[in-house]
Amino acid sequence: MLPRTIDWDGGRIVLVDQTALPELAVTAVGDVDELVDAIRRLVVRGAPALGVAGALGVALAAYTSTGAEFDAACDRLAAARPTAANLAGGVARAGAAAPDGPDAVLAAALALRDEDIAACRAIGARGAALLTELCGPGPLRLHTHCNAGAMACVEWGTALGVVRSLHEEARIDYVVVDETRPLLQGARITAVELAVVGVPYRVVVDGAGASIIARGLVDAVVVGADRVAANGDVANKVGTYPLALAAARAGIPFVVAAPESTLDAATPDGDRITIEERAPDEVVAGRPAWNPAFDVTPHDLVTAVVTEERVWRW
Amino acid sequence: MLPRTIDWDGGRIVLVDQTALPELAVTAVGDVDELVDAIRRLVVRGAPALGVAGALGVALAAYTSTGAEFDAACDRLAAARPTAANLAGGVARAGAAAPDGPDAVLAAALALRDEDIAACRAIGARGAALLTELCGPGPLRLHTHCNAGAMACVEWGTALGVVRSLHEEARIDYVVVDETRPLLQGARITAVELAVVGVPYRVVVDGAGASIIARGLVDAVVVGADRVAANGDVANKVGTYPLALAAARAGIPFVVAAPESTLDAATPDGDRITIEERAPDEVVAGRPAWNPAFDVTPHDLVTAVVTEERVWRW
Repeated sequence: MLPRTIDWDGGRIVLVDQTALPELAVTAVGDVDELVDAIRRLVVRGAPALGVAGALGVALAAYTSTGAEFDAACDRLAAARPTAANLAGGVARAGAAAPDGPDAVLAAALALRDEDIAACRAIGARGAALLTELCGPGPLRLHTHCNAGAMACVEWGTALGVVRSLHEEARIDYVVVDETRPLLQGARITAVELAVVGVPYRVVVDGAGASIIARGLVDAVVVGADRVAANGDVANKVGTYPLALAAARAGIPFVVAAPESTLDAATPDGDRITIEERAPDEVVAGRPAWNPAFDVTPHDLVTAVVTEERVWRW
Repeated sequence: MLPRTIDWDGGRIVLVDQTALPELAVTAVGDVDELVDAIRRLVVRGAPALGVAGALGVALAAYTSTGAEFDAACDRLAAARPTAANLAGGVARAGAAAPDGPDAVLAAALALRDEDIAACRAIGARGAALLTELCGPGPLRLHTHCNAGAMACVEWGTALGVVRSLHEEARIDYVVVDETRPLLQGARITAVELAVVGVPYRVVVDGAGASIIARGLVDAVVVGADRVAANGDVANKVGTYPLALAAARAGIPFVVAAPESTLDAATPDGDRITIEERAPDEVVAGRPAWNPAFDVTPHDLVTAVVTEERVWRW
């Protein structure tokens, strides 16, 4: 069994320590500043998980502080990773219940947790139905990149939620997992998730993904998304775009599984998405490097975007 | 200055120790069994360099042994890496001069060395002329994968020979170098070669190559080849194919630079090329992995194959 990535247990927050992966170590956090530290050290990561972490952190604060002390704790939480919109959103949502007392704050945080679980389950079921329509009953050979799994959410995952929904019906042959350089989220996180839930998989270097598809070894590609523009262009972890090119050439589906919160109607197309450039030392020590964190897959290469509410095709 | 990858100096073979890269360490080898060991440990690698190593090794043997002892030394050399056709070829070519004495053997080995140098210079000049025709005078922004450079040959290189021929005329803006997992030949070898000769470069993870091209940051892709089939399909280090897909979509040239010896008229197309599957532990320790060493780029994605004799287009 894969433990929940983040949960509440008797007054403490329990977390899978993602810095310890591939070891599956669960750690408990009993006060806000421990949680702020855990968020900063990437013990917990992934937009939905960070939202729930922020909300549960406010519950911790509500049980131990009031007034200015409580407000300051909420501010520290929201600022632990300044660019993580979900974190500040989770803090704000739980904080709005503060006038009704700490139990109300906790209830709001647990509601956010439960909504994330329900969204992942809905994405998984809808994606599984779509792949059945596109590829037949299987068993299917799927290909994924990075980690769009339980470890980025509370449980189940988005792209890996689709995998797991199919696996419940014994309809997965295997999953090809790109290792996902430079931070190796595929080899370190996705591979662990699949191993724990019993899905057969093979790790490949990122450069091998496209030719694995060309050789006929994959029925469909399923990935998550960091942002989907209004025209359907998809920003996701760098290395997603070459899989989309290969899938189009091979004539197999390229499916994006992501919550509605990822859809950004205010961004008309992928050209307007700023690509985060990270430190060159993540790629190679002491040499010049470019290290874009994301790439953009144009919508004409995307078969469908599956959310908890709909299948978006064009 | 980049020293020659392999050369003869006063009765000894001098080699750039490729196991020490990114440190540039030159080592000298004075007898055949030391050389056999160096070949086995990949101190010297790359098909053309191995051919010259075999031939110079026969010269070492010819100066110190005769008869059955000489023949046994040649056999040990040829078998040091059993699948390296160039190694056995170099041994056979130098060995054929043995009846004329050790000086004739050395002359045959040095002729092979000089032919390789001349071939690389010709490939470089022809490739530079082709890129000028296709992309204009530049300065050019090129993209390469793996190491098709001096370190795989005696000096100058094939794909990197094209880069250096352009660089001699100050016509390179920069070279994007895929790190080339799992063995990192791009980050470890190509980056060092370019740094030493003063060509500006940026290393990128393999997954980033395609989107770097899509973002308009590259004028042309130039790679080497391990084998070119009769129809122009190209087998090269895994991760080459996604660059070809991205180049085709972006409408930029995808040029293959390789010696005539790489052209395999006996293999009709890429489907008949067996893809070497290497140990999974090169990718990830203790987990299931696929580790294909090569991929095949279909000829419709290849703008031209440049050899020391011609530019092959279709």
